[in-house]
Amino acid sequence: MLTLFHAPQSRSTRILTLIEEMGAADKITLRPVDIIRADGTGARDHANPHPDAKVPALDHDGTLVTESGAVMLYLTDLFPSPLAPVQGDAKRGAFLTWLFWYGSVMEPVMILSGAGLDHPWLAKTYRGMPEITARLQSALSRGPWLLGDTFTAADILIQSPFHWFKDAIPDDPLIRDWLARGAARPAYQRVMQAEAQRRAA
Amino acid sequence: MLTLFHAPQSRSTRILTLIEEMGAADKITLRPVDIIRADGTGARDHANPHPDAKVPALDHDGTLVTESGAVMLYLTDLFPSPLAPVQGDAKRGAFLTWLFWYGSVMEPVMILSGAGLDHPWLAKTYRGMPEITARLQSALSRGPWLLGDTFTAADILIQSPFHWFKDAIPDDPLIRDWLARGAARPAYQRVMQAEAQRRAA
Repeated sequence: MLTLFHAPQSRSTRILTLIEEMGAADKITLRPVDIIRADGTGARDHANPHPDAKVPALDHDGTLVTESGAVMLYLTDLFPSPLAPVQGDAKRGAFLTWLFWYGSVMEPVMILSGAGLDHPWLAKTYRGMPEITARLQSALSRGPWLLGDTFTAADILIQSPFHWFKDAIPDDPLIRDWLARGAARPAYQRVMQAEAQRRAA
Repeated sequence: MLTLFHAPQSRSTRILTLIEEMGAADKITLRPVDIIRADGTGARDHANPHPDAKVPALDHDGTLVTESGAVMLYLTDLFPSPLAPVQGDAKRGAFLTWLFWYGSVMEPVMILSGAGLDHPWLAKTYRGMPEITARLQSALSRGPWLLGDTFTAADILIQSPFHWFKDAIPDDPLIRDWLARGAARPAYQRVMQAEAQRRAA
């Protein structure tokens, strides 16, 4: 049995988008949990098995998977679909790189840049927004999606912070158009609607 | 053909440890490159295909894989061994979680904590060293290695920053003993020796 511990309009929303894109909603039980929000509302929810009380957390027959990239990789491996190149596919390496790069580079850079923090170690480790922008431009100059012609879980993950932090969107038509294409997808639209209702409930 | 772009005594050293543990050194060409070091020495090396001039970078028949977790996952999938649970194994989810957690949580926390940076967003996103310590203690209270009885690539990756930043090692016997077990492994010893010679050359 697969259970996704989810808080509406949070870092687990992108997992719902992936599930909706894969047409796998009937295979995964959604378990709503509370989280502490950026504005200080909400609370640690003891029904959430995540050791740090974050979302997403995925339970598969008693095995816990956390970190958005890991959850996406685990689900796309479990339910093969065009959303992810499988092992042996020539694009597998690029796909893994995008999933790991998101949490290891892109998210730290966006948070540190948004918080206005600076230190010589940060640029050495992470570089900065110009390098994030260059990486996206380089991929999107070769096709409509990060891996080329096919929309994948990498697009869902890497587009997700820009949906919340619109001020961080690089001023580049390739990137803006890519984000617009992602936001126009019917699965994304359905998830956004359901999330607004869940949050209002 | 597999080529690893490597700088001695850097973030790519842990990939050498993995390759040595897997006994796969004869299947991967090592290509030394220069990097800009923490002390400011070294330079961007145009022979390095990594878009941000970092290491590790793995080229497999023209496909580039970067980010240490992605490189480790890619290599362990390519050469199945006890170093990693394969797809379908009950420990696969925990393995992926450790690999992603390293870059998405542990490394940012260690760098921000070492740099003395603080901001309300950081604790909300990453938590801090107490949570890192608790996560390691919880795993190591159940077995000698992070996944239980078997030493895996997750141990190599997550032990690696403690080999450089010994001041950051939590004052806990479970963690200190786990690090000592890792450092005592013959493959680790061989790589350390070879790396010292490469750096001195």
